Amino acid sequence: MKLEKTQVLIELALLGAVGEKRGVTLRELAKRFEVSPQTVMRLLEELEEEGLITREVSGRKTYVEISDEGLGFLEGLCEKLEKALYRGIILGEVVSGLGEGSYYVKLYSERIREYLGFEPYPGTLNVRVVFPKTVFDALVNVRPILIPGFIKEGRTFGDVRAYPVEIDGIKGAIVVPSRTVHPPRIAEIIAPVNLRKALGLGDGDRVKIRAVKEAGK
Amino acid sequence: MKLEKTQVLIELALLGAVGEKRGVTLRELAKRFEVSPQTVMRLLEELEEEGLITREVSGRKTYVEISDEGLGFLEGLCEKLEKALYRGIILGEVVSGLGEGSYYVKLYSERIREYLGFEPYPGTLNVRVVFPKTVFDALVNVRPILIPGFIKEGRTFGDVRAYPVEIDGIKGAIVVPSRTVHPPRIAEIIAPVNLRKALGLGDGDRVKIRAVKEAGK
Repeated sequence: MKLEKTQVLIELALLGAVGEKRGVTLRELAKRFEVSPQTVMRLLEELEEEGLITREVSGRKTYVEISDEGLGFLEGLCEKLEKALYRGIILGEVVSGLGEGSYYVKLYSERIREYLGFEPYPGTLNVRVVFPKTVFDALVNVRPILIPGFIKEGRTFGDVRAYPVEIDGIKGAIVVPSRTVHPPRIAEIIAPVNLRKALGLGDGDRVKIRAVKEAGK
Repeated sequence: MKLEKTQVLIELALLGAVGEKRGVTLRELAKRFEVSPQTVMRLLEELEEEGLITREVSGRKTYVEISDEGLGFLEGLCEKLEKALYRGIILGEVVSGLGEGSYYVKLYSERIREYLGFEPYPGTLNVRVVFPKTVFDALVNVRPILIPGFIKEGRTFGDVRAYPVEIDGIKGAIVVPSRTVHPPRIAEIIAPVNLRKALGLGDGDRVKIRAVKEAGK
């Protein structure tokens, strides 16, 4: 996007112009934004005119401090952004799994029935997450249902976290093994039906997944 | 601030143009931003040209959806803002306390010595927080030291959380009773010295408090 005052203000905050004056040169700011020093100068002047920063020029350096109004503006922006971005919506593309999903869904199916209240189709819909960066970013405000692990024939099967979701009106859940540390880039979704068939989905198709906040149980 | 594309993009995300087309009218957007419909039109056109939204006009309605690039831009902005704003800096103004601080500091002084490692001056410096909105916003990434409560002469004195901070190079701590639910608008600071005297502070003076992340103990 073409450089706007908002971006300059955020950059000044990152440079530490919060609660104290920070010395910057037009040249270094221009380089950082890949614009001309004249453009930076104009944007700083406008930010000052609008009362969002104070500015003192001394030699080659400009000493900049974000005003209380500027800080309030940035805080408001941050709140809006968090609200707009992280409200349980996940966008992604259907991908093929390794076929493991079916095996695990069958193994956990009794527990899925007990904890999520539906008989799962033996397979998962795998979605490569495009937005937000990770599944966890989208689910940060969603309380998962813990499906406890078990031991079978001497093998341990760990706890699984299930995040209730909806795709095109069909209810299901994103399942993530509890021991997962790194946020998964692929969301594995279980549902009472074959989601690929029910929604007519093929590899590469876009889907929108909506987290359901009022988790059952 | 004069309306910029960034604000329009954030507003479109708030209106739900994430993962689906949202129908909006220029008139309602113009009203929301207190600008002319022509201005909104121009900003939407620019957002489309830069690939940040897709747009379809149908009758009076414009159907807008934020593109993956637009979502990535907003995510990046959000990350930068969180980093810039919430890194343990508190700005505020010195105010007078009710004199209670001194009473409590004396009561807890032995524990303060034990848990924070300094003999507290019997009194607190009270700072009305200007930025960020609450003390807790600034301290979200700071681990407090828990000073356990006690019973004295049949009265119960609760746990206190102490957040190590620095003001103008002097180390101290913001103290908050653990049972506090609502984020305090006044930060109460203890230190080994009389901060008002040491820093020559009077009511209404601005101070910058810096949280110390590597908490002792």
